[in-house]
Amino acid sequence: MSLWEQTRRTVQDDIAAAAMDLFVEHGFDAVTMDEIATRAGISRRSLFRYFGTKEDLVLRSVAGTGESIAAALRARPRTEGPWAAVLAVADELESAPEWDPARERAIGRMCVETPALRARRAEKHQGWVDLFTPELAARPESAPVGESAAGAIAAAALACLDVATDRWVAEGGVLAAHFAQAVAAVRS
Amino acid sequence: MSLWEQTRRTVQDDIAAAAMDLFVEHGFDAVTMDEIATRAGISRRSLFRYFGTKEDLVLRSVAGTGESIAAALRARPRTEGPWAAVLAVADELESAPEWDPARERAIGRMCVETPALRARRAEKHQGWVDLFTPELAARPESAPVGESAAGAIAAAALACLDVATDRWVAEGGVLAAHFAQAVAAVRS
Repeated sequence: MSLWEQTRRTVQDDIAAAAMDLFVEHGFDAVTMDEIATRAGISRRSLFRYFGTKEDLVLRSVAGTGESIAAALRARPRTEGPWAAVLAVADELESAPEWDPARERAIGRMCVETPALRARRAEKHQGWVDLFTPELAARPESAPVGESAAGAIAAAALACLDVATDRWVAEGGVLAAHFAQAVAAVRS
Repeated sequence: MSLWEQTRRTVQDDIAAAAMDLFVEHGFDAVTMDEIATRAGISRRSLFRYFGTKEDLVLRSVAGTGESIAAALRARPRTEGPWAAVLAVADELESAPEWDPARERAIGRMCVETPALRARRAEKHQGWVDLFTPELAARPESAPVGESAAGAIAAAALACLDVATDRWVAEGGVLAAHFAQAVAAVRS
């Protein structure tokens, strides 16, 4: 990654973090792009150069996560079946030092409350299915699954993540535990 | 349903059918709203009164399906578990006289090829999850599942339907058979 690209990403992360603070304080709908620019200490014009919409700012916070989940799936033992690998990765992510439950739950709550955000998250998850499918299909030492079956498991896993996130927002607790319950229901 | 509402629905069905003919002949992107109005024998102004976008015209064709699937789930024996009921309903729908495989597959192909349409279908399916969840939860004579687990199964079933539709578009065969394979993979 070039120095220019690294700088760009750092700037974007800082802007997204400032926006998230405002969203958590005042609610997603109440915050304007002008207020975000002011909080981030940049001009409105610069803000729009990096982010076209408020939705982009929220989803930026989960931008890298698709790649990190795919990498975590790739790193699981080849003897694990697809679902075992998915469940193990969910536990790993939630015990990683970068995991910020308060912030993640705030994003989840915004997605529950804001239809436009929910729709954008669904689009993003659609892209994740394509990232995860090859990792789930390439597990030669478990009972092998084809691309199509692996795609169904990847899509079902993301459906379980949405259900688990809704429940986590409503009831609290541990996201990975809600996720494991949803997966158990789906596999029953 | 009032006579006015019935008339309105018939008009909408006719317009959607004319639009679908054009989409199948020329491809979704190549057809304009003007051409659809001409084929349906109405003014452009009338067309826009019924349908705001070309996407709406395609999804109109599957508009009633969410309610019919929910009704079919409700009619299944209470002794069936959620997945057994879902699989039985898939078989029922594909052997119903209204099922037009050529048209359904053409819609499926358009969704594969047109990102905007795929996104709208995903939104529509999100609404279906809310329709199906109570039907899957209310099966007291099978091992009972809570609302949250039923929601996970409904969402996973729709993920399986998308995977099965993609495969049906690519390979042909019977949609319900592709669906049953995807469900088997997800439950493994």
